[in-house]
Amino acid sequence: MKYGIAIFPSKKIQDFANSYRKRYDPHYALITPHVTLKEGFEIADDQVDDVAKDLVQVAKQTKPFSINISKVSTFSPVTNTIYLKIDPNESLTSLHNQLNKVEATPEKDTFQFVPHITIAQKLSDDEYSDVYGSLRMMDVSFEDLVDRFQLLYQLDNGSWTVYETFRLGEE
Amino acid sequence: MKYGIAIFPSKKIQDFANSYRKRYDPHYALITPHVTLKEGFEIADDQVDDVAKDLVQVAKQTKPFSINISKVSTFSPVTNTIYLKIDPNESLTSLHNQLNKVEATPEKDTFQFVPHITIAQKLSDDEYSDVYGSLRMMDVSFEDLVDRFQLLYQLDNGSWTVYETFRLGEE
Repeated sequence: MKYGIAIFPSKKIQDFANSYRKRYDPHYALITPHVTLKEGFEIADDQVDDVAKDLVQVAKQTKPFSINISKVSTFSPVTNTIYLKIDPNESLTSLHNQLNKVEATPEKDTFQFVPHITIAQKLSDDEYSDVYGSLRMMDVSFEDLVDRFQLLYQLDNGSWTVYETFRLGEE
Repeated sequence: MKYGIAIFPSKKIQDFANSYRKRYDPHYALITPHVTLKEGFEIADDQVDDVAKDLVQVAKQTKPFSINISKVSTFSPVTNTIYLKIDPNESLTSLHNQLNKVEATPEKDTFQFVPHITIAQKLSDDEYSDVYGSLRMMDVSFEDLVDRFQLLYQLDNGSWTVYETFRLGEE
């Protein structure tokens, strides 16, 4: 099955992101707003609990940390994706790197890690210009505590179900 | 915030349920297919981790158990809800009862516990008759292992995000 690893920010941030995703993100109904830590990767059914054990170790060794969001940004011209940008954060990057080193999940991310919460994607060029033109001016300011991450799997319809939660820093 | 407690069955069962939910359940996009263990209830933000601690205790004291699904049933005439019926199961009922006794979540369920996975709801009477008339004849047969449950919270748009997973029988 296809698994992924993500952080769900607090309800306040998710509600804010959804107010845009509802109109501008075709993945709106597939998963609630999130920060992807590890893109979709395959795990055999009989190996998922081994992977989960490794994730427990990573979680234990990571202390809860704060993240800040202070601007709207974009992956254009690569894709017409607009997102809430998470300010550079060593704890988050370190967590990402560790999760992508977990032995049983050897796929490497192809892109540099740019932590973000998508609020619009797969827009036409015209729509993208309109939407980003107005969103880029927006004042956004959120601080959030990250104290857990989640391992999810994807259903046939594209939606994601949480398999397990991993609390940071717990023995 | 409003929280709920649910079990997500295995992917195979979720995919099967979604093949009907897509057409017949307006909650299709709000949550993946699930067995509700505790209906939505309010927890203050500063109390959720106390509730989570109680849930850890309930989970530890509950051994993983199997459930069986062998028929499609309905809550009609109370509501036009059609569901995959989970065969009577002492472990599941006991888990439900314990979760509804957790001290910090005093709301009582008003209805008898009928464990189920909804596949259609809020149908018009005519649509209900059509859909149930064909689904009731369907052979369904699933066995599944329950080894965890999840505490979720509801966003403003009605969708649900997992707050935490509780594995059964773990020390």
